[in-house]
Amino acid sequence: MHVDIGNALASVASPGVSRDSLERLDERVANAHERIEAGRADDEHGYAALNLPERADPDEIRSAVDPVADAEALITIGIGGSALGAATIVDALENEGDGTETVFLDNVDPEWVSRRLEGLPLAETAINVVSRSGTTAETLANFLVVREAFESAGVDWTERTIVTTGEAGPLRDLADRHDLPSLRVPDGVPGRFSALSAVGLVAAAVCGHDLEALLAGAQAEADSLSGSLFECPAYAYGATAYALDQRGVGTNAMMPYAESLETYAEWFAQLWAESLGKDELGQTPVRALGVTDQHSQLQLYRAGPRETLVTFVRSRETEDRPIPETDVDDLSYLGDATLGELLEAEFAATEASLAAAGRPNIRLELERVDEYELGGLLYGMEAACVLAGELYEVNAFNQPAVEWAKKATRGLLGGGEFAEAEAVAEKTELRVER
Amino acid sequence: MHVDIGNALASVASPGVSRDSLERLDERVANAHERIEAGRADDEHGYAALNLPERADPDEIRSAVDPVADAEALITIGIGGSALGAATIVDALENEGDGTETVFLDNVDPEWVSRRLEGLPLAETAINVVSRSGTTAETLANFLVVREAFESAGVDWTERTIVTTGEAGPLRDLADRHDLPSLRVPDGVPGRFSALSAVGLVAAAVCGHDLEALLAGAQAEADSLSGSLFECPAYAYGATAYALDQRGVGTNAMMPYAESLETYAEWFAQLWAESLGKDELGQTPVRALGVTDQHSQLQLYRAGPRETLVTFVRSRETEDRPIPETDVDDLSYLGDATLGELLEAEFAATEASLAAAGRPNIRLELERVDEYELGGLLYGMEAACVLAGELYEVNAFNQPAVEWAKKATRGLLGGGEFAEAEAVAEKTELRVER
Repeated sequence: MHVDIGNALASVASPGVSRDSLERLDERVANAHERIEAGRADDEHGYAALNLPERADPDEIRSAVDPVADAEALITIGIGGSALGAATIVDALENEGDGTETVFLDNVDPEWVSRRLEGLPLAETAINVVSRSGTTAETLANFLVVREAFESAGVDWTERTIVTTGEAGPLRDLADRHDLPSLRVPDGVPGRFSALSAVGLVAAAVCGHDLEALLAGAQAEADSLSGSLFECPAYAYGATAYALDQRGVGTNAMMPYAESLETYAEWFAQLWAESLGKDELGQTPVRALGVTDQHSQLQLYRAGPRETLVTFVRSRETEDRPIPETDVDDLSYLGDATLGELLEAEFAATEASLAAAGRPNIRLELERVDEYELGGLLYGMEAACVLAGELYEVNAFNQPAVEWAKKATRGLLGGGEFAEAEAVAEKTELRVER
Repeated sequence: MHVDIGNALASVASPGVSRDSLERLDERVANAHERIEAGRADDEHGYAALNLPERADPDEIRSAVDPVADAEALITIGIGGSALGAATIVDALENEGDGTETVFLDNVDPEWVSRRLEGLPLAETAINVVSRSGTTAETLANFLVVREAFESAGVDWTERTIVTTGEAGPLRDLADRHDLPSLRVPDGVPGRFSALSAVGLVAAAVCGHDLEALLAGAQAEADSLSGSLFECPAYAYGATAYALDQRGVGTNAMMPYAESLETYAEWFAQLWAESLGKDELGQTPVRALGVTDQHSQLQLYRAGPRETLVTFVRSRETEDRPIPETDVDDLSYLGDATLGELLEAEFAATEASLAAAGRPNIRLELERVDEYELGGLLYGMEAACVLAGELYEVNAFNQPAVEWAKKATRGLLGGGEFAEAEAVAEKTELRVER
C-alpha cells in the first residue's frame, strides 16, 4: 500500500495539516507505536489482531473446507465483522476466483432471505456460519432458516457446514454434536479486525483464493510498521485522518475507483465507526464509489461544509477494454480511449478538483487488486485504525454502545426481562400524516 | 408516507429541536411553500419536478417500451440521476416484478463492465440509454461498448434500444437516424429529481410495474403539500432535518429496515448531497441499512460525535418467514418468533436506543413497499429537499461544483484545451511508501 497525503497538507487544503504539525504529531506516533508493539508482544485484546498474518494457518483452513471445496455456491451466515471481511475479500477478488457463487446472509429481512435461497443448488452448496459467541440473534435465526431449507430439500446440511466460532457456546456445541469441521475465532481479536483469520478466510478458501498471498501482503504491511508516520504508510493514513478530524474534518469518505472494492468501503466503514466512535469522538465514515459518485456526492464534497476528507483508493494496473470509435460529433475523443483510461482520467480530475477547491484528500494506491495487495490494504487500514485509537485515546477494541439495543431486542422477543425493552414503549411521538 | 419527528425534539435529543422553535420555523415553511407553489405554477426550473406526477404519461412510456416489453434482461446505461431513480424503483419492487433481469451500467470500471455483460442473453436483452445532454462521457462510452457487444453477437441493437434524452444532442440524433423509440427528459427537471418521469419509469415499465400506482402515490403526496410542517409529512421531514443541521447535526444517515430499499438510500444520498451541498452549507448523507449496520455503524451513531441524525424507514407490512424451533440452550426465544418479528424488534430497539442516548432520529413509515407507497416516498423526499433548499437559501437545482472535474477529464483525454487539465499535473505530493 502506498499513501500520498500531499493533498491533506495545509499548503493545499483548508482545513489541512501543516508539515510542522505533522512533525509534532510524529512524536505521539512514536509513543503510540511503542504502545502498539507492547500490546502485540503480549497478544493483548485487540492488539492481537495485528499478529494475525503470522498466526493464521492456511493449511488448517483449507483442511476444514476440503469437504466442500468443489461447492458451486457458498452461503456465509454472519453479521458485522463476521461477514464483512469475508465479503470484502471475495468481492474484491471476484474476477480471480473459481466461480463459486457467494451469498452473504447478513440481514434478517424475510423476503430478501427467501429470495437469496431461491434457486441455489443446495446439494452443491456449502454453509459457512460465523459467530464468536454462537448466540448472535440474526446469525442464529438465519442459520436455523437455512438448515431447515436444506432439510426440506433432502440435503444433509451436516455434510456441508463449516462453523467458525469461539471456544464455547451453542455453535461450538453444535459443531461437536454433529462432528462438523470447525475453526476458531481467534482470541483477543474483535470481529471487525478478524478478516485475516478463519472469519474472513474460510470463504476465500472455498472460492479458491491464495490464502498465503493474502497473508504475505498483510505481513509486508506489518513489517513496515515503524515509529514515524513519514516512514509507515498505515500510520501516515491514521495520523493524517486523526489530525484532520482535530481540525474539523469529521467525515471520511472512502472512495475506491474500482467496483470490486465497493465492499471494502463498507468494511472500512465498520472498522472506523465502531472502533473510534465513542466518548463523543470519532470520524464518520461514508461509503462512496468512483466514478459513480462523482455524479452524486462530488458537489457536496467540493462545495459543501469543509468537514470531509475524501480517501481515494486507486489500482495502478487494471484489465482494460477499448471504447469503440464513433462518428458522433463531439464524442470522437472517447473513441481514442479505453474505459480504463477514462476511469483513470476521471480519478485524476476528481482528485485535482478537490485540491483546487482546497478540500483535503488522501490517495491510497495498490499495484493491482490481487490477494497480496488486498492483504496489505486490509492490514494497513487496521493498523491505521489502531493508531488512530491511540491518538484519540479511546479503546478501539470494544463497542459498548450496541449492548442497549441487543438487550431491548431480546426482551421484546420474550428472551428475558430487560429494562431496555420497557423503554421502547415509552417513545415520544410527534406524528405528521397526510 | 408517515413521519414521526418525536425523537428529534429537544425533550428527547441533544441536539434536538424544541417544539417552540419548530413553531417559529413554521412561519418560514409557510413562506417557502408559497415560493414553491409559485415555482410549480410557472413550471420554473427545478420546481417543475414537483409537477411530474400529473405530467408523466404512462401510455407514452409503455408504447415506447412495447417492442421490448418481453425482454428477459434490461441494461440501463446512465449515471447519477439518470440511473439511480430507475434502480431505486426496480430494486424496491424486485419481489413484485415480472422477473426481468436488470443491469445498471453506472460506472466505467472495465472489468466490471465486461462481467456485467457476460452471460446476458443479448438477443433477448433491451438497452435503456439515458442522458439529458446526450454527451455524458461515462454513459456514451458504455453505450458504445454495449452497442459493439450486440453487433459482435449478431444482434440488431437498433431493434432493442430505447433512448431517453433531451430535445437535442448526439443521442437525439442517434434516435432519429435509427428510428429508435425515444422519450424526453422533461425540461426543467434536474436528473436527481427525475425518477417520476421517463428517466425512472422506462425500466419500471419493462419490468412490468404499475406506473399509474407509482404516480398516484406521488400525487397523493403532492396533494398533501401545505403551508405548515405540522400538517405535511414531506415538509416535517425537510424542516426538521434543516433545523437539526442548524444545531450542529451535519450528518443524515438514511437507514431503511428493508433490503429492497438499499438503493433508495443511495438515491436519497444523491438528492440530499447534490441539492444542498453548496456555499459550504448542506448536510452530509450517509447510506445505512437495518439491521445490518447495527453491527457496524450503531456504535458511532449512539456514542460518537453528536452530529448525526438517523432517518429510519420502516414498512408496516412485510411478507414473513418463521424461524424454525431449536433445542439450543439460550436461543429458544428465537424459535417462537419470525424473521419479520426479529426485524421489527431490532428496529424498535435501535430507535429507542438512540433516543435513550439523546441522539436525534426520525421515523418514516410506509404501509408496505409497493408502487403506490414508493411513489409517495420518492415524491415526499423530493419535496422535503426542495423545502430544505428554500430554508438554506441555496439553489437546490444546480450542481456547479462538478463542472471542474468534467472539463479536466475531457482535457486529459484529448477532447479539447482546458486549464483544469493542466492543473492535474501540478499535484502536491507527500508519498509514504514501505
